[in-house]
Amino acid sequence: MMNYFYNEFPESITALTPEESNHCIKVLRKKRGDQIDIIDGKGHVFSAEIIDDNARKCSYKILDVKNTAKRNSYHSHIAIAPTKNHDRLEWFVEKSCELGINEISIVTTKRTERKNINLDRLEKKAISALKQSKNLFKTDINNMLTLNDFLKSHIKEENRFIAFVDYDNPNFLHQKITKDSDILILIGPEGDFTPEEVELANSKGFDNVSLGKSILRTETAGVIAMHTINIANEC
Amino acid sequence: MMNYFYNEFPESITALTPEESNHCIKVLRKKRGDQIDIIDGKGHVFSAEIIDDNARKCSYKILDVKNTAKRNSYHSHIAIAPTKNHDRLEWFVEKSCELGINEISIVTTKRTERKNINLDRLEKKAISALKQSKNLFKTDINNMLTLNDFLKSHIKEENRFIAFVDYDNPNFLHQKITKDSDILILIGPEGDFTPEEVELANSKGFDNVSLGKSILRTETAGVIAMHTINIANEC
Repeated sequence: MMNYFYNEFPESITALTPEESNHCIKVLRKKRGDQIDIIDGKGHVFSAEIIDDNARKCSYKILDVKNTAKRNSYHSHIAIAPTKNHDRLEWFVEKSCELGINEISIVTTKRTERKNINLDRLEKKAISALKQSKNLFKTDINNMLTLNDFLKSHIKEENRFIAFVDYDNPNFLHQKITKDSDILILIGPEGDFTPEEVELANSKGFDNVSLGKSILRTETAGVIAMHTINIANEC
Repeated sequence: MMNYFYNEFPESITALTPEESNHCIKVLRKKRGDQIDIIDGKGHVFSAEIIDDNARKCSYKILDVKNTAKRNSYHSHIAIAPTKNHDRLEWFVEKSCELGINEISIVTTKRTERKNINLDRLEKKAISALKQSKNLFKTDINNMLTLNDFLKSHIKEENRFIAFVDYDNPNFLHQKITKDSDILILIGPEGDFTPEEVELANSKGFDNVSLGKSILRTETAGVIAMHTINIANEC
């Protein structure tokens, strides 16, 4: 299967980034005159011809729009507390992007230990997952903000849920999702949300849901939630 | 919430392993006379009292059986091709164990590049996921064997599936699973199963299933498959 190269503005900037150029020319040994596929993360696949096989700045001319994908009938958005170990957050981003998530927000909560994230690394994971999975829409990743600020600005999504460890909650996420409607799920940190945070989210219209019987790590809960959204919409 | 310590034979070997002893005494600073919870990975939680707080060999006496869990009504088994990168295989083991998988087999296929696995590391991941998730049954991990040999010995499971990249297959796994029955799913390597391998599996009674629209990495497919088994049984 053909490789995809990513360029956010393939028609105005007609060269690959240094990283993509290196991959195209050095690793895949493409030459002047060869055809490549370029995706813009906005639903398009462009067919292009290499006009300069420079391994730091591979220039091309666009031949055609090869494919235009339609967006899903629903917008999937997960707001997740950053894990103590940054690798685990990266793993969540990679996996949920593979699964086609539309938007990721990073929110800090009372029990969040991590004070900063490497947004640049998360973006790279999102792009590599995009290319790998052959999804055509790039995930938007929003920079860190507090749960409080996040809740103030997210009151429109039709399905809003807060997932946390709750043995008594018989409301499994997959039974609560309405097909074809926008969805936003909050996932807590190691140590979970505080009762006050759950209450606050409830007061803003977020419903409590369970992701199953096991106690899951934050990043596992995030990936599993995204897969549950997909399943609910494929039924 | 209380920590669990793992000991496969807590009643006959009444000391923790060096690793668990260190965690108990050095990290958690438990002392002689303190009570701890020990799990055997076979459904039991034992309450025990520390009688020697040795950080390399913490001895205890069992006070009581605190909890006995019942096994699920179904046995979940995933047979997966080892990934080129061993870390990715370890991720799969950790995540699927968190999700409560019963059995994992590692099978080599025509397009599998990896020639060996570190079963010891995988076992450690399984035990740490067991303790973290508060599941009470340890996952069995079987050593590597060829797909051919594997297929010969697995003809009894009620639901047998082979998952691979197949755009035309409208049979999503979650729609094919029968609740409360044993299930076995084959997950292919990077580069996927060969058509001959799919045919061979089909001839042994394995049904083709799709895990969704995205092209997933091997380890993602494995985790997602396990979550799908859980969802199908919680419905």
